[in-house]
Amino acid sequence: MERHFDEELKELHKEILKMGALAQESIYKSIEALKNRDKAGAQEVIDTDTRIDELELLIDEQCIDLIARYQPVAFDLRFITTGMKLNAELERIADLAVDICQRVLELVDKPLLKPLIDIPKLSTIAQKMVHDSIDSFIKKDMDLAKKVVLSDSEADQLRNLVQEELVNDYMARDTSTATRAVPLFLIARHLERICDHATNIAEDVIYMVEGKVVKHHHQDLE
Amino acid sequence: MERHFDEELKELHKEILKMGALAQESIYKSIEALKNRDKAGAQEVIDTDTRIDELELLIDEQCIDLIARYQPVAFDLRFITTGMKLNAELERIADLAVDICQRVLELVDKPLLKPLIDIPKLSTIAQKMVHDSIDSFIKKDMDLAKKVVLSDSEADQLRNLVQEELVNDYMARDTSTATRAVPLFLIARHLERICDHATNIAEDVIYMVEGKVVKHHHQDLE
Repeated sequence: MERHFDEELKELHKEILKMGALAQESIYKSIEALKNRDKAGAQEVIDTDTRIDELELLIDEQCIDLIARYQPVAFDLRFITTGMKLNAELERIADLAVDICQRVLELVDKPLLKPLIDIPKLSTIAQKMVHDSIDSFIKKDMDLAKKVVLSDSEADQLRNLVQEELVNDYMARDTSTATRAVPLFLIARHLERICDHATNIAEDVIYMVEGKVVKHHHQDLE
Repeated sequence: MERHFDEELKELHKEILKMGALAQESIYKSIEALKNRDKAGAQEVIDTDTRIDELELLIDEQCIDLIARYQPVAFDLRFITTGMKLNAELERIADLAVDICQRVLELVDKPLLKPLIDIPKLSTIAQKMVHDSIDSFIKKDMDLAKKVVLSDSEADQLRNLVQEELVNDYMARDTSTATRAVPLFLIARHLERICDHATNIAEDVIYMVEGKVVKHHHQDLE
């Protein structure tokens, strides 16, 4: 019985890693589509989302099934319930990549507003945070999880910069920019929400490993 | 044992209802603060959020503890894992009410742009969806859950209307409106995301009761 449980747990790891890889790929491709004004690329991310949705349901089932059949307690139980949360966060991250692609489709036929300000930089941070948050779960690595939580304020600041620049330097100066500035404004928000989801994952990992609540108490980490 | 489990499950119901009531109250108060340009009211919602965050953690613990001690299977297990998801959704709903209040604080010292378009109407839909989604969970009421899922497209349409009006009739015509139109634009998005979270809850309830996946397949409900 023990042996099987461990094997099935490893199977669960693998599925979660796959889910994480798909979510990261969606973020990357959504920003590539934005940079290259690539309609087909944006559409591809939107179409792939069905696969990610299906994988989410599969992982959720796997988790409930593991609990029902093996009735794990203590750390094992918490590991699986944390896996369920992480799974839901990853599905939402992929949804946000779809949101970005929908903005790309709105923008693609309009003249470029200007180079994309700090959006590519924000996207790099988002991808790293997602990667590290999943890694911290699989490796039960507290330090890495804490690093993710602390990166979130950098992402917030960058989003604010992008937003302020778009509102003050474009929308508030030239009305003709509104329909092009608004989608970029939203893309910055979508990326920052991806960072929030990665932070949620990392907070759950810290709680899982340490039993310490950092959710809503980031100052305790610094 | 049976008896105790049932009693503790009822206790869990009560806590979830309390969480739902707090979340609904936050939405209501955030829109009241917007209508009345009420800084103190907005601040109150922001301050109350700590209580909601604490309750979320408490409910999460209660759920894991119930699973560990009673090792429920089949429907009981699924009911508790659904409760965990619902709990997380409600916490996010309350966070979005906080987001609305932060926009209210940005707006309160600026001249009014115009009456609030369809934002109060969108807020009424959001509150009803949240209420009904929790109700459908407690009563295991499939029909009510399906009604919630189907309301979501109405909320989407209303948000799009508000956004188009703000971009086309204000931002794209008069640059001086940008800093006032953007917060309203975001409030419409916050409200629509509240509706999305209520939809997530209702989808989870349908799956819990019927074992049928409607998540990502809304057309099957119509």
